[in-house]
Amino acid sequence: MTAGNARVKDARKLSRRSERSERRLFLADGPKAVEGALGVDGCVVEVFATPAATTTYAPLAAAAGDAWTLVDERALASLSDSVSPAGVVAVCRFLDRPVDHVLDRDPRLVALCADIRDPGNAGTVVRCADAAGADAVVFAGQSVDFYNPKTVRASVGSVFHLPVATEPDPVAAVRAAQAAGLVVLAADGAGEVDLDRADDLLARPTAWLFGNEAWGLPAELAALADHRVRIPIHGRAESLNLSTAAALCLFASARAQRA
Amino acid sequence: MTAGNARVKDARKLSRRSERSERRLFLADGPKAVEGALGVDGCVVEVFATPAATTTYAPLAAAAGDAWTLVDERALASLSDSVSPAGVVAVCRFLDRPVDHVLDRDPRLVALCADIRDPGNAGTVVRCADAAGADAVVFAGQSVDFYNPKTVRASVGSVFHLPVATEPDPVAAVRAAQAAGLVVLAADGAGEVDLDRADDLLARPTAWLFGNEAWGLPAELAALADHRVRIPIHGRAESLNLSTAAALCLFASARAQRA
Repeated sequence: MTAGNARVKDARKLSRRSERSERRLFLADGPKAVEGALGVDGCVVEVFATPAATTTYAPLAAAAGDAWTLVDERALASLSDSVSPAGVVAVCRFLDRPVDHVLDRDPRLVALCADIRDPGNAGTVVRCADAAGADAVVFAGQSVDFYNPKTVRASVGSVFHLPVATEPDPVAAVRAAQAAGLVVLAADGAGEVDLDRADDLLARPTAWLFGNEAWGLPAELAALADHRVRIPIHGRAESLNLSTAAALCLFASARAQRA
Repeated sequence: MTAGNARVKDARKLSRRSERSERRLFLADGPKAVEGALGVDGCVVEVFATPAATTTYAPLAAAAGDAWTLVDERALASLSDSVSPAGVVAVCRFLDRPVDHVLDRDPRLVALCADIRDPGNAGTVVRCADAAGADAVVFAGQSVDFYNPKTVRASVGSVFHLPVATEPDPVAAVRAAQAAGLVVLAADGAGEVDLDRADDLLARPTAWLFGNEAWGLPAELAALADHRVRIPIHGRAESLNLSTAAALCLFASARAQRA
């Protein structure tokens, strides 16, 4: 199959957000992502792969079965935004569910991202949440498109590992977390609680609320949280970047909940 | 002063690593970096600024005094690799010192990076080390050029906040840390110590040893460390990215040392 094939052309259009939203399909690029996608029932529509990748990733080809479609190098490259495509790209069905669906099984740790704009940050937060053993990630407000290829890549497969929800209204997302029995902790440089002195609080089922990279959380949203928690800064740095702050908060919860 | 001026031209050449190494000068781009540079005695050679930036950043202009040089927008843009230059770029003298120099004042927390290759990661690690109250950062082995504009920018001024050393031989760097009375802890996904159950160890004066983004620490270097410490991964993520892992390790030490 070549780059001019109609199915390849259709898949290529999924690089545009509007096309993804309309068809509720996205691309998973590279073996880690494809492996993750194949692990989610009913997620994969089709896997495009070069002959070389079919040899290298034989277990993926076996798992994909009839969904595995051979394409030439040029067709594959046209589906990848990577500088050096790994030779395998899957067309996947959207994964996100309504926020109350992903919170309906007594979650203990949830990451709630409000207005996160950078695709790479969003993917890194999903990867961290996965590593910290979180039960779900919620993207609320005007957040980045979770299905952006950069987000999927930065998550290194984690977008397929845990339930993800999108909720346009951040207030509704906070309320849903509270209704699910979670303490909502806003990560806030000016918060009244010190992350290093809050193990009793952190041991409770928690939703962490993270704000935008540049301007943080709007005051009215931070006020809705049950507590506002600051990461103690000991040196002369003024702040931490979003994904670093999220990692410290999520892993502090993981530690306290397992102590 | 315009883009064709000899001093602007000379400064522009500092975008090349070879030119930086030869002249032991580098560029600090943007108000945070310039403020940091002006805070280090004898670091700043000259600050190029547009008339608009001179108004916006009047305190910086006052601090720079005779070193403040007005240039037009085009000249300034030619010195910046930022998409939207902030209007102020400083020519700075190299900051790094020999590794034994930066470890000679009873350090309690040091980040020791071996073979880190990505400029953004290197800057983020410096920012985290600063925020965690570390006493120094050492770049050992074939690490990225610490004076890369991307590194300086990702550090958000932190490259100017704490002592930095470079040491081509990673083994010598580990030995120097041990000679300075530091316990060397290698961050290692397969480490024998669990980060969450090591507060007694973490409370000791510590040098954290971080390896390359892709392949981690060479076995022989990890073996030289006093202990190898793993971050517990609770979900299905296989690993964390380097700067996330470094943040979790450095802040775990900061917490344990202050408990």
